[in-house]
Amino acid sequence: MTTLLQFDFAFDGPWGKDLEPACRELADDIAAQPGLIWKLWGENPVARRSSGVYLFETPEAAEAYIAKHTPRLAAFGVADPGLSRFTLNLPLSRATRAPL
Amino acid sequence: MTTLLQFDFAFDGPWGKDLEPACRELADDIAAQPGLIWKLWGENPVARRSSGVYLFETPEAAEAYIAKHTPRLAAFGVADPGLSRFTLNLPLSRATRAPL
Repeated sequence: MTTLLQFDFAFDGPWGKDLEPACRELADDIAAQPGLIWKLWGENPVARRSSGVYLFETPEAAEAYIAKHTPRLAAFGVADPGLSRFTLNLPLSRATRAPL
Repeated sequence: MTTLLQFDFAFDGPWGKDLEPACRELADDIAAQPGLIWKLWGENPVARRSSGVYLFETPEAAEAYIAKHTPRLAAFGVADPGLSRFTLNLPLSRATRAPL
Protein backbone atom coordinates (compact mmCIF):
# COMPACT_ATOMS: atom_id res chain seq x y z
CA MET A 1 0.00 0.00 0.00
CA THR A 2 1.69 3.15 -1.24
CA THR A 3 2.47 5.45 1.68
CA LEU A 4 2.87 9.22 1.50
CA LEU A 5 5.02 10.94 4.13
CA GLN A 6 5.10 14.68 4.60
CA PHE A 7 7.82 16.27 6.72
CA ASP A 8 7.48 20.04 7.29
CA PHE A 9 9.80 21.85 9.73
CA ALA A 10 11.52 25.10 10.64
CA PHE A 11 14.97 25.36 9.09
CA ASP A 12 17.70 28.01 9.05
CA GLY A 13 19.29 27.10 5.74
CA PRO A 14 21.40 26.72 3.71
CA TRP A 15 19.05 27.16 0.74
CA GLY A 16 19.00 26.46 -2.98
CA LYS A 17 22.43 26.10 -4.54
CA ASP A 18 24.05 26.14 -1.10
CA LEU A 19 21.82 23.33 0.16
CA GLU A 20 22.76 20.96 -2.63
CA PRO A 21 26.42 20.33 -1.70
CA ALA A 22 25.48 20.23 2.00
CA CYS A 23 22.94 17.48 1.34
CA ARG A 24 24.33 15.61 -1.66
CA GLU A 25 25.66 12.70 0.43
CA LEU A 26 22.39 12.57 2.38
CA ALA A 27 20.41 12.54 -0.88
CA ASP A 28 22.45 9.61 -2.18
CA ASP A 29 21.82 7.73 1.06
CA ILE A 30 18.08 8.49 0.90
CA ALA A 31 17.96 7.33 -2.72
CA ALA A 32 19.24 3.94 -1.55
CA GLN A 33 16.63 3.64 1.23
CA PRO A 34 14.74 0.33 0.90
CA GLY A 35 11.19 0.81 -0.35
CA LEU A 36 11.59 4.47 -1.32
CA ILE A 37 9.85 5.33 -4.59
CA TRP A 38 10.87 9.00 -4.63
CA LYS A 39 11.40 12.11 -2.51
CA LEU A 40 10.69 15.76 -3.29
CA TRP A 41 12.80 18.40 -1.50
CA GLY A 42 10.95 21.65 -0.76
CA GLU A 43 12.33 24.86 0.69
CA ASN A 44 10.89 28.20 1.72
CA PRO A 45 13.64 30.67 2.64
CA VAL A 46 11.08 33.42 3.43
CA ALA A 47 9.09 31.33 5.92
CA ARG A 48 12.33 29.53 6.87
CA ARG A 49 10.76 26.10 6.49
CA SER A 50 11.79 22.93 4.72
CA SER A 51 9.75 20.05 3.43
CA GLY A 52 10.27 16.46 2.43
CA VAL A 53 7.51 14.65 0.54
CA TYR A 54 8.08 10.92 0.11
CA LEU A 55 6.37 7.96 -1.47
CA PHE A 56 7.18 4.53 -0.05
CA GLU A 57 6.10 1.15 -1.36
CA THR A 58 4.71 0.06 2.04
CA PRO A 59 3.86 1.54 5.45
CA GLU A 60 6.61 -0.63 6.97
CA ALA A 61 9.23 0.87 4.68
CA ALA A 62 8.01 4.35 5.63
CA GLU A 63 8.25 3.58 9.35
CA ALA A 64 11.78 2.20 8.95
CA TYR A 65 12.75 5.43 7.21
CA ILE A 66 11.18 7.60 9.92
CA ALA A 67 13.16 5.68 12.56
CA LYS A 68 16.36 6.34 10.60
CA HIS A 69 15.66 9.93 9.53
CA THR A 70 14.29 11.46 12.74
CA PRO A 71 17.62 11.21 14.64
CA ARG A 72 19.40 12.47 11.52
CA LEU A 73 17.15 15.55 11.46
CA ALA A 74 17.80 16.04 15.18
CA ALA A 75 21.53 16.10 14.40
CA PHE A 76 20.78 18.97 11.97
CA GLY A 77 19.02 20.81 14.81
CA VAL A 78 15.48 19.79 13.77
CA ALA A 79 14.16 18.46 17.06
CA ASP A 80 10.45 18.06 16.48
CA PRO A 81 9.63 17.90 12.77
CA GLY A 82 6.03 18.02 11.65
CA LEU A 83 5.30 14.59 10.20
CA SER A 84 2.13 13.22 8.61
CA ARG A 85 1.47 9.76 7.17
CA PHE A 86 -1.14 8.98 4.51
CA THR A 87 -2.14 6.28 2.11
CA LEU A 88 -2.83 7.37 -1.44
CA ASN A 89 -6.25 7.45 -2.98
CA LEU A 90 -5.07 5.99 -6.28
CA PRO A 91 -8.09 6.64 -8.56
CA LEU A 92 -8.34 10.29 -7.50
CA SER A 93 -4.56 10.73 -7.70
CA ARG A 94 -4.55 9.26 -11.20
CA ALA A 95 -7.37 11.62 -12.17
CA THR A 96 -5.09 14.54 -11.31
CA ARG A 97 -2.07 13.12 -13.20
CA ALA A 98 -0.12 12.02 -10.12
CA PRO A 99 3.12 10.25 -11.03
CA LEU A 100 2.46 6.72 -9.74
CA MET B 1 9.71 28.14 -10.59
CA THR B 2 8.07 24.85 -9.67
CA THR B 3 5.95 25.29 -6.54
CA LEU B 4 5.05 22.57 -4.07
CA LEU B 5 1.85 22.97 -2.03
CA GLN B 6 1.03 20.78 0.94
CA PHE B 7 -2.49 20.81 2.37
CA ASP B 8 -2.98 18.74 5.56
CA PHE B 9 -6.26 18.92 7.50
CA ALA B 10 -8.69 17.11 9.80
CA PHE B 11 -11.36 15.25 7.83
CA ASP B 12 -14.28 12.99 8.77
CA GLY B 13 -14.43 10.95 5.56
CA PRO B 14 -15.61 9.42 3.35
CA TRP B 15 -12.47 7.36 2.73
CA GLY B 16 -11.00 5.15 0.02
CA LYS B 17 -13.54 3.72 -2.38
CA ASP B 18 -16.25 5.91 -0.87
CA LEU B 19 -14.20 9.07 -1.37
CA GLU B 20 -13.70 8.49 -5.07
CA PRO B 21 -17.31 9.01 -6.28
CA ALA B 22 -17.73 11.88 -3.81
CA CYS B 23 -14.72 13.68 -5.28
CA ARG B 24 -14.64 12.56 -8.91
CA GLU B 25 -16.13 15.78 -10.26
CA LEU B 26 -13.82 17.81 -8.01
CA ALA B 27 -10.82 15.81 -9.28
CA ASP B 28 -11.77 16.51 -12.90
CA ASP B 29 -12.03 20.21 -12.11
CA ILE B 30 -8.66 20.19 -10.33
CA ALA B 31 -7.08 18.36 -13.29
CA ALA B 32 -8.13 21.30 -15.49
CA GLN B 33 -6.65 23.92 -13.13
CA PRO B 34 -4.26 26.21 -15.07
CA GLY B 35 -0.63 25.55 -14.19
CA LEU B 36 -1.25 22.33 -12.26
CA ILE B 37 1.38 19.68 -12.96
CA TRP B 38 -0.14 17.02 -10.69
CA LYS B 39 -1.87 16.37 -7.38
CA LEU B 40 -1.52 13.47 -4.95
CA TRP B 41 -4.51 12.65 -2.73
CA GLY B 42 -3.59 11.29 0.71
CA GLU B 43 -5.89 9.95 3.40
CA ASN B 44 -5.44 8.68 6.94
CA PRO B 45 -8.71 7.24 8.31
CA VAL B 46 -7.06 6.38 11.66
CA ALA B 47 -5.77 9.89 12.34
CA ARG B 48 -8.81 11.28 10.47
CA ARG B 49 -6.68 13.55 8.32
CA SER B 50 -6.50 14.25 4.61
CA SER B 51 -3.72 15.58 2.47
CA GLY B 52 -3.26 17.19 -0.89
CA VAL B 53 0.23 17.48 -2.36
CA TYR B 54 0.46 19.59 -5.51
CA LEU B 55 3.07 20.72 -7.98
CA PHE B 56 2.38 23.93 -9.90
CA GLU B 57 4.38 25.43 -12.74
CA THR B 58 4.63 28.83 -11.03
CA PRO B 59 3.98 30.43 -7.61
CA GLU B 60 1.25 32.55 -9.25
CA ALA B 61 -0.61 29.45 -10.46
CA ALA B 62 -0.38 28.00 -6.95
CA GLU B 63 -1.78 31.19 -5.38
CA ALA B 64 -4.68 31.25 -7.86
CA TYR B 65 -5.47 27.67 -6.90
CA ILE B 66 -5.33 28.43 -3.17
CA ALA B 67 -7.78 31.30 -3.69
CA LYS B 68 -10.15 28.94 -5.50
CA HIS B 69 -9.68 25.86 -3.30
CA THR B 70 -9.81 27.36 0.19
CA PRO B 71 -13.51 28.36 -0.02
CA ARG B 72 -14.26 24.98 -1.59
CA LEU B 73 -12.66 23.22 1.39
CA ALA B 74 -14.64 25.46 3.72
CA ALA B 75 -17.81 24.26 1.99
CA PHE B 76 -16.72 20.71 2.88
CA GLY B 77 -16.39 21.82 6.52
CA VAL B 78 -12.61 22.31 6.42
CA ALA B 79 -12.34 25.78 7.87
CA ASP B 80 -8.63 26.22 8.57
CA PRO B 81 -6.55 23.78 6.51
CA GLY B 82 -2.86 23.49 7.20
CA LEU B 83 -1.13 24.85 4.12
CA SER B 84 2.57 25.15 3.29
CA ARG B 85 4.25 26.53 0.18
CA PHE B 86 7.70 25.56 -1.03
CA THR B 87 9.92 25.80 -4.05
CA LEU B 88 11.63 22.61 -5.13
CA ASN B 89 15.31 22.00 -4.79
CA LEU B 90 15.63 20.41 -8.22
CA PRO B 91 19.11 18.80 -8.03
CA LEU B 92 18.38 17.16 -4.68
CA SER B 93 14.90 16.10 -5.82
CA ARG B 94 16.36 14.57 -8.96
CA ALA B 95 18.94 12.72 -6.85
CA THR B 96 16.04 11.01 -5.05
CA ARG B 97 14.16 10.13 -8.26
CA ALA B 98 11.46 12.77 -7.90
CA PRO B 99 9.06 12.78 -10.86
CA LEU B 100 9.79 16.20 -12.42
